Amino acid sequence: MARARRARVLALTLRAVALTAAAVPLLAAAAAAQAPVSAPPIDAHSQGSLTASINLAWVLVGGFLVMFMQVGFAMLETGFTRSKNAVNTMAMNLMIYPIGIIGFWMTGYALMMGGVAQWPSLGATGIASHEMSLSLGGHTFGLLGARKFALLSVSHDPASLAMFLFALVFMDTAATIPTGAMAERWKFSAFFIYGLFMSMFLYPLYGNWVWGGGWLAQLGVNFALGHGHVDFAGSSVVHMTGGVTALAGAMVLGPRIGKFRRDGAIGALPGHNLPMAIVGTLILAFGWFGFNAGSTLAASDPRIGLIAANTMLASAAGAVTALLYLWHRYNKPDVAMACNGLLGGLVAITAPCAFVTPAAAVLIGAIAGLLVVAAVLALERRFRIDDPVGAVAVHGVCGTWGALALGLFADGSYGEGWNGVSGPVRGLLFGDAGQFVAQLVGVAVNLLVVFGLAMAFFVIIERTIGNRVPAEVEWTGLDALEMGSDAYPNV
Amino acid sequence: MARARRARVLALTLRAVALTAAAVPLLAAAAAAQAPVSAPPIDAHSQGSLTASINLAWVLVGGFLVMFMQVGFAMLETGFTRSKNAVNTMAMNLMIYPIGIIGFWMTGYALMMGGVAQWPSLGATGIASHEMSLSLGGHTFGLLGARKFALLSVSHDPASLAMFLFALVFMDTAATIPTGAMAERWKFSAFFIYGLFMSMFLYPLYGNWVWGGGWLAQLGVNFALGHGHVDFAGSSVVHMTGGVTALAGAMVLGPRIGKFRRDGAIGALPGHNLPMAIVGTLILAFGWFGFNAGSTLAASDPRIGLIAANTMLASAAGAVTALLYLWHRYNKPDVAMACNGLLGGLVAITAPCAFVTPAAAVLIGAIAGLLVVAAVLALERRFRIDDPVGAVAVHGVCGTWGALALGLFADGSYGEGWNGVSGPVRGLLFGDAGQFVAQLVGVAVNLLVVFGLAMAFFVIIERTIGNRVPAEVEWTGLDALEMGSDAYPNV
Amino acid sequence: MARARRARVLALTLRAVALTAAAVPLLAAAAAAQAPVSAPPIDAHSQGSLTASINLAWVLVGGFLVMFMQVGFAMLETGFTRSKNAVNTMAMNLMIYPIGIIGFWMTGYALMMGGVAQWPSLGATGIASHEMSLSLGGHTFGLLGARKFALLSVSHDPASLAMFLFALVFMDTAATIPTGAMAERWKFSAFFIYGLFMSMFLYPLYGNWVWGGGWLAQLGVNFALGHGHVDFAGSSVVHMTGGVTALAGAMVLGPRIGKFRRDGAIGALPGHNLPMAIVGTLILAFGWFGFNAGSTLAASDPRIGLIAANTMLASAAGAVTALLYLWHRYNKPDVAMACNGLLGGLVAITAPCAFVTPAAAVLIGAIAGLLVVAAVLALERRFRIDDPVGAVAVHGVCGTWGALALGLFADGSYGEGWNGVSGPVRGLLFGDAGQFVAQLVGVAVNLLVVFGLAMAFFVIIERTIGNRVPAEVEWTGLDALEMGSDAYPNV
Repeated sequence: MARARRARVLALTLRAVALTAAAVPLLAAAAAAQAPVSAPPIDAHSQGSLTASINLAWVLVGGFLVMFMQVGFAMLETGFTRSKNAVNTMAMNLMIYPIGIIGFWMTGYALMMGGVAQWPSLGATGIASHEMSLSLGGHTFGLLGARKFALLSVSHDPASLAMFLFALVFMDTAATIPTGAMAERWKFSAFFIYGLFMSMFLYPLYGNWVWGGGWLAQLGVNFALGHGHVDFAGSSVVHMTGGVTALAGAMVLGPRIGKFRRDGAIGALPGHNLPMAIVGTLILAFGWFGFNAGSTLAASDPRIGLIAANTMLASAAGAVTALLYLWHRYNKPDVAMACNGLLGGLVAITAPCAFVTPAAAVLIGAIAGLLVVAAVLALERRFRIDDPVGAVAVHGVCGTWGALALGLFADGSYGEGWNGVSGPVRGLLFGDAGQFVAQLVGVAVNLLVVFGLAMAFFVIIERTIGNRVPAEVEWTGLDALEMGSDAYPNV
Repeated sequence: MARARRARVLALTLRAVALTAAAVPLLAAAAAAQAPVSAPPIDAHSQGSLTASINLAWVLVGGFLVMFMQVGFAMLETGFTRSKNAVNTMAMNLMIYPIGIIGFWMTGYALMMGGVAQWPSLGATGIASHEMSLSLGGHTFGLLGARKFALLSVSHDPASLAMFLFALVFMDTAATIPTGAMAERWKFSAFFIYGLFMSMFLYPLYGNWVWGGGWLAQLGVNFALGHGHVDFAGSSVVHMTGGVTALAGAMVLGPRIGKFRRDGAIGALPGHNLPMAIVGTLILAFGWFGFNAGSTLAASDPRIGLIAANTMLASAAGAVTALLYLWHRYNKPDVAMACNGLLGGLVAITAPCAFVTPAAAVLIGAIAGLLVVAAVLALERRFRIDDPVGAVAVHGVCGTWGALALGLFADGSYGEGWNGVSGPVRGLLFGDAGQFVAQLVGVAVNLLVVFGLAMAFFVIIERTIGNRVPAEVEWTGLDALEMGSDAYPNV
Repeated sequence: MARARRARVLALTLRAVALTAAAVPLLAAAAAAQAPVSAPPIDAHSQGSLTASINLAWVLVGGFLVMFMQVGFAMLETGFTRSKNAVNTMAMNLMIYPIGIIGFWMTGYALMMGGVAQWPSLGATGIASHEMSLSLGGHTFGLLGARKFALLSVSHDPASLAMFLFALVFMDTAATIPTGAMAERWKFSAFFIYGLFMSMFLYPLYGNWVWGGGWLAQLGVNFALGHGHVDFAGSSVVHMTGGVTALAGAMVLGPRIGKFRRDGAIGALPGHNLPMAIVGTLILAFGWFGFNAGSTLAASDPRIGLIAANTMLASAAGAVTALLYLWHRYNKPDVAMACNGLLGGLVAITAPCAFVTPAAAVLIGAIAGLLVVAAVLALERRFRIDDPVGAVAVHGVCGTWGALALGLFADGSYGEGWNGVSGPVRGLLFGDAGQFVAQLVGVAVNLLVVFGLAMAFFVIIERTIGNRVPAEVEWTGLDALEMGSDAYPNV
């Protein structure tokens, strides 16, 4: 085809052109409308507020999609656990949402985001904020926010309220992860208190350090480590925090009865509804688009196209490598592990999704798919940790990998000015070793601090009300004795 | 809003005007467009049409989310009913959607919205409209719309079509509520006719009075009762209408066999799949964001941030209070009731979501969580009404509470010019007792008129084709004998 | 884009400069927020880029909704098959998504869209593209794209990446359709290879011809057949391709054991979870809004209102006619067939949704509802083809009907300049017989070419690794012997 024609013919193929028709007349009508329609509100908007509007809508829709991931987690975890505990597993996934909302509303949001004065993409400026920080050797290190408790000081600010919603559903994702690793033996009262601890304090702490302007974000300006610890949508902030807390919880709880036998054999204890778990996986993949693409906080940032495509590509690569590897090794296509591979790919791409090319996304996801298999096997066989749904492997291990992958593959095409450091974000392979170090530091701090605090919390609970149901409850099932409801009473 | 506009009561009632523009100019473009297609349409847009575009997209996405609530209702109701009736319960939730579409398309939309001439946030003006109204003592009282039957007169107007979709899915929410309260004993043919009655007439009637410019919306301009009956997203219009109709239906149908025994004992008749019901609850909470935040009809209204956050906070408070109350009282965390508490919080915040602070939203939801427990117990024990899923308590009682809560807690920060009355909307606690009266009137009218008409309808059906399946069908299960399909034939 | 800008490589890569601003203030806030908040990025946008932004967001949200249809297909198909094959059916629906992503990423997108230089509604222009074409008698016939393999040449272009995502999920819809018709007997390895064949080659081929600027789209400019073959959202491109491939696959595989008995009787082989199938149906109806309304590629096209309303109306009409017809004929309301009717209505309206009036949409859907019943019965009874979920009837037959319906009912109010032909799109009933012929040609080519290539593929597989599991695997269930996992191990 000749160039001129091609430009024309193909463009025509695209339907987008059909819009001309639609747009022009609308305009014409708008201009020509003689009806003394008293000024509709639409003319009152400035260009700036229109952009803020579409960004606000984007953040909200993204937040809704992330909230919907609760359904995915609920189905995944319940499908992978036994029917005698189905109500309990569902109930934890259901209730972590409201418990987390109340906790995050009361203190969590304030501690995490109380030092953030503005959300420029949402058109808001100058909210009173306060960050508790430390000054050392001429540097300032943010430690924790200290304003906006119970949203009182921002109760009519749309940007803050949308950010509350968006930050909350991310927190809830982190908070729901341990319910998988600790399923089938966790006391509901202990879980309830955990929900408050996570939403009111633990998640907001690390969240502040990376996303609330805290000291990990400041590693760049303070120590010239790249742009400081960068995590686009939460490989470390959300998934590592959830996975590391899950690890501490599973260690304190100990394995389910029958998991690790005296003779060294490992019990399978299969879940009760694999189709439910598969549906949950697909729902998570759906909601993840909000997770990652929503994290621009701006539909006006065209990077959302790259982010969404990368998210999809990494998930696919993870699912395919996990499936093929186990198919090759055990001669059966293990669907449950393909689910974990898909999720591992998603977790891993979460931090780097905006900074890497599609080809790198495929590579990151493919590695995550293998990692998750290795981690599931190692945790069970080598470390003898009982994690019924593989939450530690998927979220903890692949979250770590994702945060590091950003430090390797960020290609310098995005992130200008991120965390107050000029220039785009570059990984080790693109010339910035400091960025990789910042990623390492962030990951190490998560492992140390989050793990340490979670462990301290679970130990305190252990010594007070106890974390674990009595053995007879576990034998009979938590549904009957702990929850007082059967999952499937009259089938 | 300018004072001059206030004169035009109907238009103001609606918060909106519409796209005359779109139809005419599309045609014009079709007929006239010789334009060399090359120019991409994106530069041709005016500020106004861009705003209209994002609002149109917002209304549609909101409508899609509300439509998705059908999945939530289907799973909730089917999970809470017995497996022998699972196909029947699912089938009602499936079919109410298409039946409602056809009914609302034929007459419902016209009766409800036929008097609305414009949707200003969607960028257009001057659609021919007609409202049947009554003139008394110098006042005009809107009674019912009378244009746009089968969408014939607006078949190319994007704003009207989007509003049709949006109004329809709200109607379908109301229409699906009775399928829960009347489950496990309702004849499918009677249900089918009910679907037409609800979508073609009953819902549109009350809907017109509040949202279509009718007399309840006019209580402000006519009698200085605040801004007239105000219901942001449907506590009274959708949920009370559904819940009150459900009550009438459940009363006419009578309890399921085995529910209320001769010796006064109450049979439990537990549902067959509690996990399914919990998933349904979470899906409803997801779709509710479209319900409430979509009801601005405008992404360009930054209030969407507040609305979405309030929706979430009220749901959480309702779930937590319902759970804690029953946990405290019966020593078990009752998950099914936590679901109802969460939904009760959502129903209650639906009317006031745009008008109250986040703290008030928490309070409104917390009260709803307790109300729903009290109402479920009272309806069953005191009034001996058999409502298998608690629909009357959740939608009827909490819907009433929500409409009244607006009349208490609206804080005067929103609603300027609403229903043609200048100034923002204020509740009793913020100085406007008239608003509370308007809320009371709206609620009372719903209880009287909707209940009365629903009762009349069910009685007429009772005396003609009958509402209830024969006892042997109920014993065996409606799936086998009424539907001819088993839910789980070969597990 | 202006030439001057092109120099600035980074800016071009991002086209909207990322969150520069978002990062700065975060940091600033942490450091104490004295900095004179640098101008937020929202003022930097031009009108054009804002429109591109909302269109990009629209395409992505539409794509997410279509991706979510995978959940619908998974539940529909698994519900309609037996529990002994539930993991296998789920696994195919799960894995077709990642397999398809990888395949489409490697070659599919390039072959289908590699000849498209721009997406005007998304604000992108001038991507290097290449279409393999044939020149004959002064005409050019596009055959296949030949650029953008593995997205390498567009790895930072948001419009291309969003279009990759959007095109991909449509492909995945087509690719998942045969998993229903071929369920309960298909070897997983053969399925895996099929997934690559479909995503890498077969779908992109026909997709290029209609949507990538290929020769079917050019029937208008080359031969004055209306606007060439027009398919708004995929009745022929997606659904026929999937349905026709499903037919070829089901023919090569042959019926399940026990379906067609020697005495001529037909075994029922009912699925195992009808509620799951109904939920899947509603989820598909939800995702379909993204399918159809997203296909404008522009929220700035107000036609989205009409499209969404038409989508809903046609689905309703299909469900109602299918239900009423069978209720009338067999005296029971057949819910499974109502699901198929609803889906048939959706498939049929997919091509014409933007071009016809709401009343026509109701008619098109109503006919589809009857067609799907007739086709299911005919395929089973007359042609003795075993299609466990009715995929051929729903997608193949109603897809054909939908493509033809556009050629009948397009009313000339939309489609100006479509496929390079001036004037709007008109069907036979509105004066353009050429358009109907173009629709017929497109449908015939799909039947010949897609069917032929699919058949060739399945025959080659048959003669190499084989398509079908051994009889004992089929007897015992594919879950145990093919997948190595039980669906419901400990209920």
